[in-house]
Amino acid sequence: MAGALGLALLGGCVSGDGGSGFGDRASALPPSLAYRLTQSLTTEVGPRLAGTPREAAARDWAVRTLKDLKFGRVAVEPFTIKGWAREREEAFIVSHGDQALAVTALGGSISTPKAGITAPIAFVASYDDLLLAPPDAYAGKIVFINDRMKAARDGSGYGVAVRKRSRGAIEAAKRGALAVAIRSVGTDNTRFPHTGNMNYDAAVKRIPAAAVSNADADQLERLHAMGVPMRLKLVLKTRAIADAPSGNVVADIVGVEKPDEIVLLAAHLDSWDLGTGAVDDATGVAIVVAAALKAAGPEMKPKRTIRVVLYGAEEVGVHGGDAYAKAHAGEIANHVLATEADFGTGRVWRFASKALEADLPFFDSVAAGLRDLGVERGDNKSGGGADIAALAKKGVPIVGLSQDGTTYFDYHHTANDTLDKVDAAALEQNVEVYARVARAFANR
Amino acid sequence: MAGALGLALLGGCVSGDGGSGFGDRASALPPSLAYRLTQSLTTEVGPRLAGTPREAAARDWAVRTLKDLKFGRVAVEPFTIKGWAREREEAFIVSHGDQALAVTALGGSISTPKAGITAPIAFVASYDDLLLAPPDAYAGKIVFINDRMKAARDGSGYGVAVRKRSRGAIEAAKRGALAVAIRSVGTDNTRFPHTGNMNYDAAVKRIPAAAVSNADADQLERLHAMGVPMRLKLVLKTRAIADAPSGNVVADIVGVEKPDEIVLLAAHLDSWDLGTGAVDDATGVAIVVAAALKAAGPEMKPKRTIRVVLYGAEEVGVHGGDAYAKAHAGEIANHVLATEADFGTGRVWRFASKALEADLPFFDSVAAGLRDLGVERGDNKSGGGADIAALAKKGVPIVGLSQDGTTYFDYHHTANDTLDKVDAAALEQNVEVYARVARAFANR
Repeated sequence: MAGALGLALLGGCVSGDGGSGFGDRASALPPSLAYRLTQSLTTEVGPRLAGTPREAAARDWAVRTLKDLKFGRVAVEPFTIKGWAREREEAFIVSHGDQALAVTALGGSISTPKAGITAPIAFVASYDDLLLAPPDAYAGKIVFINDRMKAARDGSGYGVAVRKRSRGAIEAAKRGALAVAIRSVGTDNTRFPHTGNMNYDAAVKRIPAAAVSNADADQLERLHAMGVPMRLKLVLKTRAIADAPSGNVVADIVGVEKPDEIVLLAAHLDSWDLGTGAVDDATGVAIVVAAALKAAGPEMKPKRTIRVVLYGAEEVGVHGGDAYAKAHAGEIANHVLATEADFGTGRVWRFASKALEADLPFFDSVAAGLRDLGVERGDNKSGGGADIAALAKKGVPIVGLSQDGTTYFDYHHTANDTLDKVDAAALEQNVEVYARVARAFANR
Repeated sequence: MAGALGLALLGGCVSGDGGSGFGDRASALPPSLAYRLTQSLTTEVGPRLAGTPREAAARDWAVRTLKDLKFGRVAVEPFTIKGWAREREEAFIVSHGDQALAVTALGGSISTPKAGITAPIAFVASYDDLLLAPPDAYAGKIVFINDRMKAARDGSGYGVAVRKRSRGAIEAAKRGALAVAIRSVGTDNTRFPHTGNMNYDAAVKRIPAAAVSNADADQLERLHAMGVPMRLKLVLKTRAIADAPSGNVVADIVGVEKPDEIVLLAAHLDSWDLGTGAVDDATGVAIVVAAALKAAGPEMKPKRTIRVVLYGAEEVGVHGGDAYAKAHAGEIANHVLATEADFGTGRVWRFASKALEADLPFFDSVAAGLRDLGVERGDNKSGGGADIAALAKKGVPIVGLSQDGTTYFDYHHTANDTLDKVDAAALEQNVEVYARVARAFANR
């Protein structure tokens, strides 16, 4: 498969230039490098859950691809994680004709007993309402948390909505629940449930946790409004994997004047298992790889080193970000910039930063150089993204490039996150933005 | 649940008037009767596969509802069918990292062996190409048929595309295939596979048949283009049900002058099992019920009888249509009109007919009375719809009201056919159109 991939991947231009992508059926232009990278990773590797052989296949793909693209140093930096996999997930409204609900286990959830959990639903309007409920409020029940995520260009609905996914099992268990089901953290109106990581608290009983699709949550909402008590059957089978292998792929275009100084471009290689991880985060991988090459120029001789880090195990707890910060603790001060692409396929519209006061004029000048691409200057409070948060905390200068996330959460963490959702033209705008930023810092 | 339904259903107006529906979140108007009927059937009954207890629940719902709405005669006309149910459906591209494909069994398909069928894929570009292949061309293989359906207002892409669903298993088996998988007959780009009925031929070996979602078919197409042979594992488990109960629900608003003359408004009560059958065909049920009441007027005294027939077992072979024609053979000549609503939630844009030459001026005048609703006059070659085709063949005059089907096949026969897809405003236009037609013929 490697040979065929190489051919498919390198059949066109490799500079990151080259117009709209393969997905643009109206266009006769050849697909761009970024589009071909997205296509190659999502098609040939497909789903690549952290800690599984498919994530390992993604690392192999990345090493092969980055070497083919003439990156100077390409290495896997391995680490291990506590892995997790889903095996079975079903739910039925047994009180109402056994209607099947489209559900998915949240990442990290324990299993139900083999026969499932059948119990009355406690319909809770929002996570905030759950927090207000007294202890034992939901004893013997399956808690359903119904708040709906709002779509927004900056994705600001996510932080509020994701609380129920992240901590719903803990807060429901504290109040006696047998299991928790949440309205999916997503902005679509389909029957695709959205998975995503959830947490337990060592001091609180672990209960199974699932997400229900938005269309099914609407169904529960309507039945609840009719006032007839509902009973749900929830069957989850999941599996914990001790010492699952993961790793980061680190690839450098070595600088010719200051090789020890690093401009770091980040994305993550792993995806959830349900889809092929196109907008989360194959597009990010494609953007940073294509942008690094474009920034380095045809002679591949930037002043400083341009480093692409394709992180492992982001979805299941940002393990790659932590591993990189640990493995590279000695050279963190050498990082002159870190920036990350992990928000899908929308156009970049804002340049935020986290820089020292003295450095702001330079950051401002880089931002000003993006105006013709529709990018405005944001504030100086950027945290970067999940994978580079550990670097940001240690003082590495950050550029946060906000992509338009209006539709991102329609597909995020669903089976429907596939290549056809990628906007090839917007992808090229991203490559150009990231390339200008990387070039500016690499050649400063 | 009956009581709660009655309350929910009858909480507002019952005339079919009343603005936009519940689904229109921006609107403060109360939901219309048609919208409430759609909501009630899809929420309280949900999926209602022919021959199952859920179809029986839909008949109970219909009888209760039509009686509540003061239809004068409400009866179930039972018949039995050969039932079918799905139990398990999975597929994996075993040659390419065991990538899971979103598949669904076609209605009527036999099972694979328990361990599935694992075989090379024969990638066939179109059903026409399949027909051109010689005998034994696909011996030992799983045939995949890739042609894509085109979206159109009149749904004209369906007839071409559905051939592979209807006869793909027969034609592939004739050429030695072990199983057949088709690109879904649908116009969406999602991972929802589209089910639908398929046929066997007594003279040809039966092989299992499945549909693959469009996004997964794209994936197969890309992998095929890379030239690496693919192997597929397909696991289907289905179940045949002998003598499964079904039935039509027939409800009359009895005419005061010519009670024996019948204006028949048709829709079907059964749905596929994957979704809640909102656009196929709860909206049709809602349209004809609300239109019948509106046509009859507040005093419920039309000259002729307005009959609503909610057919059973349409999806699995139009059994209700045949049963009605047989049971009512003696009064077929009394049917002055039959018309059907089974094309979702789009606005009516064309009035076609099948009338005697002498009657055309009257049909033309009825059509002319719909112009302000955006309806144009079509030809005189209408076949009606599936359920009334048997009546049309026997000479019953037909009006065929074409709904805008541009998005209908995005949801048709998928898990994603749910209430949120219903356009409440367009639904009211349908009710008004069907009501005007029914009134014109009933009071002629």
